[in-house]
Amino acid sequence: MTSGRRRDDAPGESPVVVIEEGSVGIVETKSLVLERPLALGCGAELGPITVAYETYGELNAAGDNAILVEHALTASAHVAGRHSPSDRVPGWWDVMVGRGRAFDTTKYFVVCSNLLGSCYGTTGPSSTNPKTGKPYGSAFPPVTIGDMVAVQKELVHRLGIRRLRAVVGGSMGGMQAIDWGLRHPDLVDTLILVATAARATPQSIAIHKVGVEAIMGDPDFRGGDYYDGKRPEHGLAMARMLGHVTYLSDGWLWQKFGRRRAAEPAGLRSLFEIESYLEYQGKKFVERFDANSYVHLLRAIDLYDAEDGHASLTEAFRRMRCKRALVASFSSDWLYPQYQSRELVEALRANRIDVRAEEIDSGYGHDSFLLEHELLTPMFRDALS
Amino acid sequence: MTSGRRRDDAPGESPVVVIEEGSVGIVETKSLVLERPLALGCGAELGPITVAYETYGELNAAGDNAILVEHALTASAHVAGRHSPSDRVPGWWDVMVGRGRAFDTTKYFVVCSNLLGSCYGTTGPSSTNPKTGKPYGSAFPPVTIGDMVAVQKELVHRLGIRRLRAVVGGSMGGMQAIDWGLRHPDLVDTLILVATAARATPQSIAIHKVGVEAIMGDPDFRGGDYYDGKRPEHGLAMARMLGHVTYLSDGWLWQKFGRRRAAEPAGLRSLFEIESYLEYQGKKFVERFDANSYVHLLRAIDLYDAEDGHASLTEAFRRMRCKRALVASFSSDWLYPQYQSRELVEALRANRIDVRAEEIDSGYGHDSFLLEHELLTPMFRDALS
Repeated sequence: MTSGRRRDDAPGESPVVVIEEGSVGIVETKSLVLERPLALGCGAELGPITVAYETYGELNAAGDNAILVEHALTASAHVAGRHSPSDRVPGWWDVMVGRGRAFDTTKYFVVCSNLLGSCYGTTGPSSTNPKTGKPYGSAFPPVTIGDMVAVQKELVHRLGIRRLRAVVGGSMGGMQAIDWGLRHPDLVDTLILVATAARATPQSIAIHKVGVEAIMGDPDFRGGDYYDGKRPEHGLAMARMLGHVTYLSDGWLWQKFGRRRAAEPAGLRSLFEIESYLEYQGKKFVERFDANSYVHLLRAIDLYDAEDGHASLTEAFRRMRCKRALVASFSSDWLYPQYQSRELVEALRANRIDVRAEEIDSGYGHDSFLLEHELLTPMFRDALS
Repeated sequence: MTSGRRRDDAPGESPVVVIEEGSVGIVETKSLVLERPLALGCGAELGPITVAYETYGELNAAGDNAILVEHALTASAHVAGRHSPSDRVPGWWDVMVGRGRAFDTTKYFVVCSNLLGSCYGTTGPSSTNPKTGKPYGSAFPPVTIGDMVAVQKELVHRLGIRRLRAVVGGSMGGMQAIDWGLRHPDLVDTLILVATAARATPQSIAIHKVGVEAIMGDPDFRGGDYYDGKRPEHGLAMARMLGHVTYLSDGWLWQKFGRRRAAEPAGLRSLFEIESYLEYQGKKFVERFDANSYVHLLRAIDLYDAEDGHASLTEAFRRMRCKRALVASFSSDWLYPQYQSRELVEALRANRIDVRAEEIDSGYGHDSFLLEHELLTPMFRDALS
């Protein structure tokens, strides 16, 4: 079934919705060490690997009520709740996880882990390289979506999960969910794929390229071994600014900023309010994210292709054994355009998987996958029912 | 009249079409010095100003057969013909100018001048500041589309032109053409506006911002006073790479590059063929263009708004006295989206100007305005008939 839903009430600013009713409350990020080195897609071995993760709800006796949430590019394992009572902002998908929410913690055991290569507790380029006692930096090997899934598979196993009720992911998280369906077909009941694709478009690769060039060309990058000095902040901020533009839509930028001039312009360098906003986003980002991790994760996206080694996506999806799938996409998303979701739907259906396809009319661009939670909630419930 | 035209035969590579039949042959760039300082939109004075220009065909006795061609961001006065018999590539719109071509040099006197602020012969930041004997650099004042038109007005006057049969511009050139129609309503018969807009979208400003940031944040930029040393090549190349992505379309990138890997990958920095292509574009560009000029011209685009000081575009266009206009736009152009051309058409029509609106279905993105010359030629002829 394909249905269009309209949302005309695009707000003047990014909605930050804190719904305390049903919240999972105070949570903590746990971690697990996988001592045995992992054979990576690139041929190298990496280990030991620390995996940072959070869980919400309880695993049932049969071990089959788990929902694995996959995070996108710059998020973390912290999906829901708060780390302390004074924590100002809840987890990145808090609205979806909790008592009575789409991923109802009275029914499901919800798990999310920080991606391999990231910088929020799971091993990545800024982690200590046991061989040198210093951060990996340039010695960190390229990691693939498949490697990330391999680490998650081990985590899932150690948590005692025997079947995944669902694997859920938006954007890059959707690529991991697809990969779960392909690599571990017998473990996954339902795939929930939001604003995602079987592979990045060349346009998206081209834009990533400029971000990578900004970071790796920053004199402070020093080949990736910058942890003992100044970090490539200007390059990383630029990459984030550009990324941010791709998460929004032209229409939303008109609504939110239009052509209003900056309150504090800076010569020809900064003239419009949208520029101050991007500068702010860039500045905030360099305080929280590692430049090497950003490059590694962008490239894991670029290199992922669910079709690899097959004549078509339909053929690649022959391995899929999930019972059903939800594929949701957004009209104004130009980073993961809707035609890519249609390709997923067709390839899944050609393999007789029961697919609910939702093409949602939304003005928020790619960020719709986080902002349209009210529209997504009933769809997620339906997919899990 | 609005008509859609389809072009399915998007080629595998950028078509370089050299049509010698009807060529204007060997031409030269001339120049003129405006001794009297120009009062700029920013309040500063600039002068003397050198204007580089080319002309093709002959001005008639009445001085009313001239067509003024406006160039876009990084082009020059060299629209047609070649500068020497060994010149490998003709002017940037050669296919349009010559005997029997859309701007038929047996009938029309075709003029194009390099923009104020550029680096192809007209005064710009890399020109010598008479006050210091050194390049202007950071001392070059911000210039507006209106300032560019003021310089062109003086050139047109000195060439003995009494009326412009047409002012023609694509992209940023279209903004200049619009401004001609508004500032000198009694001098312009016909406006030919291609892939352009009354103002830049916030999305386009946001993308320009990243380019400006790349240049001005390059340590070699040194506030714009880099002419005595290393130039901000990496920043300028990045800005160009990003600009280039906005000139193309997602569909065309799929056709031209798809996800093919680079022949010579460079670690995580360069993986795909599209990246090698962008690197090449960036490299070529820094050899021919000045970083300060790039920043100044981007900002002239960003700051232009034909509606400024009026309640609506329709009201702003009340001053327009041209007899007719052609407004051509392209379906896959996301830098100057078609809704912006529709705004132009509506505002012109509301002021009883005879408008032919052409919404052309083309896969080339913004670059369609240069690549779809076969479709544009009859439209231009019709607009001039």
